[in-house]
This record gives sequence, C-alpha cells and structure tokens, in this order.
Amino acid sequence: MKAKITITLKNGVLDPQGKAIEGALAGLGFDGVSEVRQGKVIELELSETNQTVGRAILEEMCEKLLANPVMESYSIEVMG
Amino acid sequence: MKAKITITLKNGVLDPQGKAIEGALAGLGFDGVSEVRQGKVIELELSETNQTVGRAILEEMCEKLLANPVMESYSIEVMG
Repeated sequence: MKAKITITLKNGVLDPQGKAIEGALAGLGFDGVSEVRQGKVIELELSETNQTVGRAILEEMCEKLLANPVMESYSIEVMG
Repeated sequence: MKAKITITLKNGVLDPQGKAIEGALAGLGFDGVSEVRQGKVIELELSETNQTVGRAILEEMCEKLLANPVMESYSIEVMG
C-alpha cells in the first residue's frame, strides 16, 4: 500500500520557517498572506496489504521516528 | 481563503532525506518499507476571496519562491 504522512507543527508552536516564507513572500510583493506554516510530507510504500494493520504500523512509525509528538501532529492518508 | 501547497521532488530526482528515513525505519525494525520520499507542505491564509484569482496567485508564489520548478513539482489545494 501507498501512504502519505503529513506532519505539521502544533498550534501555538512557533514556526520560524513559516515566518521566513511569509516575509519573503511580502518582499516579493505578495500581499495579504498570513499564518504561513511549514510542515513535512512523507510518502512511502508499505508491503503490508491489510489497511487496518498498515495504518497501525504507520502510526507507530510516526510516534517512534517521523514526528515529534510533543511539538508536531501528524495525519496519515492511505492511498490503497 | 486557506490554502495548502504540497511540494515534492520530481520522480528521478535523488532524495537523500527519504533514503535516510528508509534506513532509520529499517533500523527500528520496520520491514517492507520502500520508496520513501520526503516533501514539504506549506499552509497559508490568503486575503483574496476569489478562488480563480487566489489559485493563480498561489501558482505564481510556487514558481517564484516556494518550489524549485527544475527539481520539484507542486500541488495546490484551496480549502475555502
């Protein structure tokens, strides 16, 4: 199965990369841009074919390695 | 409007970060993981309310700053 994991900073956690992008966009003349947040997206192929088992494995991967559960939240999308 | 821009490396472009994640997952005992690719996701709030105009602005942002069109492809999702 193919899966897509999106990892974003939790609300309230400062996002300096997002702020830098916001500033750069303003510098290029893009007005009206606010609340820029940058996150990560990880796409992978998993040999597991059972959706429920696969999702559980992906959640474990996020908790153990991919995301920092203190500062980041993640969402898992299984693409079949 | 709220928008989400996903930026991923084009197929064929080497992704060392993805490879590192793949190796780390294998080291933690997660078997059967392959084709790991890491990308970026940028969420932002745009004051523009017209969907068509907003999407055009977002595309211009991607071309000029957010993505490297040589190596990266992007997808824009307007969340209303």
